[in-house]
Amino acid sequence: MPSYYLPETFNVGETVRLSADETAHALRVMRLEPGERLTLLNGCGGRAAAVLLDDGPTCKIREASCRIESTETVPRPQLSIVLYVAPPRNKNMDTVLKSATELGVARIVPVICRYAVSRPDASAAASWSQTLVTAMKQSGNPWLPELNAPIAFSDALSASDGDGFFGAVPREDDLRTSSLPYTPSRLSLWVGPEGGFSLEEEQALRIKGLIPLTVGPWILRVETAVTALLGSLLTQFH
Amino acid sequence: MPSYYLPETFNVGETVRLSADETAHALRVMRLEPGERLTLLNGCGGRAAAVLLDDGPTCKIREASCRIESTETVPRPQLSIVLYVAPPRNKNMDTVLKSATELGVARIVPVICRYAVSRPDASAAASWSQTLVTAMKQSGNPWLPELNAPIAFSDALSASDGDGFFGAVPREDDLRTSSLPYTPSRLSLWVGPEGGFSLEEEQALRIKGLIPLTVGPWILRVETAVTALLGSLLTQFH
Repeated sequence: MPSYYLPETFNVGETVRLSADETAHALRVMRLEPGERLTLLNGCGGRAAAVLLDDGPTCKIREASCRIESTETVPRPQLSIVLYVAPPRNKNMDTVLKSATELGVARIVPVICRYAVSRPDASAAASWSQTLVTAMKQSGNPWLPELNAPIAFSDALSASDGDGFFGAVPREDDLRTSSLPYTPSRLSLWVGPEGGFSLEEEQALRIKGLIPLTVGPWILRVETAVTALLGSLLTQFH
Repeated sequence: MPSYYLPETFNVGETVRLSADETAHALRVMRLEPGERLTLLNGCGGRAAAVLLDDGPTCKIREASCRIESTETVPRPQLSIVLYVAPPRNKNMDTVLKSATELGVARIVPVICRYAVSRPDASAAASWSQTLVTAMKQSGNPWLPELNAPIAFSDALSASDGDGFFGAVPREDDLRTSSLPYTPSRLSLWVGPEGGFSLEEEQALRIKGLIPLTVGPWILRVETAVTALLGSLLTQFH
């Protein structure tokens, strides 16, 4: 059943209206008809089963209405992961955002590192938000990741706590498994740009208490590193 | 230092010739000049440091020559992973191939499943091989993954052994960690198409002895599943 984003509180029996974008998708892409069922996600753990109402001729409907038939609240993931990532170029950042959403990251912080290949502006942020919503609907994850504005590395590090890992260029002394003396409820994961963290940045991460983490011995693209390291963390600390 | 692919045995002191493609990249994209150093990878663990020789005017050089100055053989990864994957559409298969190369997969078997979204032909396979070579050079992995021709699910399963895992739609009874009673030296990972394995396919995988494996509770795109599950396996069985 297709999912639609509606950032509201859901109550059984209520009639709600889809946004213009979601209406276009429901009526003109998916060609849903009155009486058909759809799933609503509010991005805050709320999921509702709804039925499309009859608003008259399809071509005139700007905001389709539907009636909520049942609701549930999906609990937050037990492990809350904050992803600090140096945005890769163009479409590759979309891959990062989609993976992070599918894998249930709580918050994404785009970080401007010394070797940044991309310095995103406000228009990038708008398109990123849209990518997150699309990924949320496709993956069925009812928790929309929070997306912060891009921030300089040193500011991001100052504002963060030190429980977590950073993606490191593979070296002998770095960890392949991410052992921690406790089961964390929140973790951060830092992934640097294509050129890697600078020496100063890496030192600052270590001083903060973040632990180097690698998957395999080879150089990973940013989007591979994000997904593989999230896979590693979710396996270790689920 | 840029890497170039040359599928030959490397011997110190020998002069070798780059292919036309690699020559174009070295001379016209990277603008290397005689005397500059480059890294050669032969795809079978061989890595060589070489120096570009003077072949005359750059515009006339079709196959640049270089002299090998030192060689080393990088051992195969201790864990040999065979990836059986239902090819996703177009560019998304490139993402799968790149990730698999960066994460050191030994062999890739494109599998045609019941809910296949893409039925690749011979021209796809040629472009896939090129993607693997590019990923090998970018990641520095001197082991080029073997790429099999696309094969029907049932034929692939018959020809495989049963040590490994398959990416499953998250369910309560499936494993989040991939416990095995031994440390494997070879594993297979099966990842189905967007629509998932069919019920019959999933049953066949289980009968063969393959273990369901999930990362997180949400639906993953094929390319996210491949990368995240490889991250999971490499963390567990490194």
